[in-house]
Amino acid sequence: MKNRVYLDYAATTPTDPRVLKTMIPYFTRNFANSMSLHSYGQEAKNSLSEARRVMAQSLNAKTPEIVFTSSATESNNFALKGIAFANQKKGKHIIISSIEHACVLNSAKWLEERGFKITRLSVDKDGLIDLKELKEKISDETILVSVMHANNEIGTIEPIKKIGQICKKNNVYFHTDAAQSFGKERIDVQEMNIDLLTASSHKMYGPKGVGFLFIKEGTNIEPLLHGGGHEFGLRSSTTNLPGIIGFAKALQLSNELNPEENKRIKGLRDKLIDGILNKIDDCFLDGEN
Amino acid sequence: MKNRVYLDYAATTPTDPRVLKTMIPYFTRNFANSMSLHSYGQEAKNSLSEARRVMAQSLNAKTPEIVFTSSATESNNFALKGIAFANQKKGKHIIISSIEHACVLNSAKWLEERGFKITRLSVDKDGLIDLKELKEKISDETILVSVMHANNEIGTIEPIKKIGQICKKNNVYFHTDAAQSFGKERIDVQEMNIDLLTASSHKMYGPKGVGFLFIKEGTNIEPLLHGGGHEFGLRSSTTNLPGIIGFAKALQLSNELNPEENKRIKGLRDKLIDGILNKIDDCFLDGEN
Repeated sequence: MKNRVYLDYAATTPTDPRVLKTMIPYFTRNFANSMSLHSYGQEAKNSLSEARRVMAQSLNAKTPEIVFTSSATESNNFALKGIAFANQKKGKHIIISSIEHACVLNSAKWLEERGFKITRLSVDKDGLIDLKELKEKISDETILVSVMHANNEIGTIEPIKKIGQICKKNNVYFHTDAAQSFGKERIDVQEMNIDLLTASSHKMYGPKGVGFLFIKEGTNIEPLLHGGGHEFGLRSSTTNLPGIIGFAKALQLSNELNPEENKRIKGLRDKLIDGILNKIDDCFLDGEN
Repeated sequence: MKNRVYLDYAATTPTDPRVLKTMIPYFTRNFANSMSLHSYGQEAKNSLSEARRVMAQSLNAKTPEIVFTSSATESNNFALKGIAFANQKKGKHIIISSIEHACVLNSAKWLEERGFKITRLSVDKDGLIDLKELKEKISDETILVSVMHANNEIGTIEPIKKIGQICKKNNVYFHTDAAQSFGKERIDVQEMNIDLLTASSHKMYGPKGVGFLFIKEGTNIEPLLHGGGHEFGLRSSTTNLPGIIGFAKALQLSNELNPEENKRIKGLRDKLIDGILNKIDDCFLDGEN
């Protein structure tokens, strides 16, 4: 096949060759289990801690607030089910938007089948939620609000700072799925009052099979994966160190070139949209202009 | 540090350089989401299907009975919780051995806190369960028996064929955690009457972050990760194709050299055990001789 153009970067990206190069020694040399007490294990632990620090710093979070997972899907399942199971004595009501990724929608549906009450916020023609509706729907039974940062299909960016303020005022946990925005848009979890945040590696030129859930210190949450006690007891399983090292490298590369890369991509996007809207009949743009 | 010797291969292994080499093109070239409908996605889907076929064949299973996960820990959590939630109307009793890996023990404990009844089978001085005790403990309420194949600390191999017979006769699902034995010991899921089997890549010179759960056709199980419907709707999340390709390559390499490698490793093991028992006072061997 000649002249194929890949335009599905919101689904997944190739791993940057510089990211892959950074990962290689962790497959074959620095390969031990980070929970092992021998010197090989301690070397792995040190590399893991450094990657965790890089992630935390980019969000203005504390290092132990980053819990590595296998993907954004796992992080979103973990956030919704973990908060639901841990806080059901306080209440069984969860609010999400109606345009969340399937892993949030279907985790919520699963909880609904188990006695939780789910409110799905409507969105306007641009895909934005209504903050007034959010305020009205929060009750004494509400334990979690989960609204994504950037939508995976139409690119709409939700007003997460304002959502964070509303949740903080009402003493409700706020989770945001930032799988599409992490490494691309600036995020400050303190300034934005975010309690839980999902990030993914393979959406930003890192490897597949890695993500994290930011969990604010003091958050009452149950693990999704029980076992040997990795990740501060919150996510057991032998650490995928090559993947995590690659994710951290991808973030560093993204930080270096972000402003100019964003400008270049936005230029390409606008050119494509203009070309389609001007040259092809009966087309319209879904999402924010 | 000079002259270090790594002896912790039951915790984790380095990735074989031939495995790593096979993985590389899937990071940078064949990188699409296997659920995407475009040609890039279909290429990824074909590679995924081939890896799944290799895994299934080694177990005498059907190809769609292999569900890829991020690890043995995830597979074990999936097996126990997935069977528990899906079959609780039939009964809420689960039987495990008392020497399972922490991820089975702690998944069972979590279910126990949610109203399930857990029986923990005792083991003899060699770490073997008592088949008579197993038969006695199975009741009309029992939905699952989970006994590991090879123990991760003392290497004991449980009589899984006989356990499978007992479970089949009593119409109870049988799950075995084969994280330590897959790719090393011969396993035939049909001959051994296994309904669910956990396997791990990084225990056999494959990459970390990959495992699978064999789920016999017709088994009533709920997903642990809800979302976009990957892996026949049983395990959502963008497929970690480089990892899966590496896992399949590791299995092929293991199949090629298995008999002679097993003999070499057993020779080294016996030499180490003899040396320690003969030359150091007050030592004894834990596990089967």
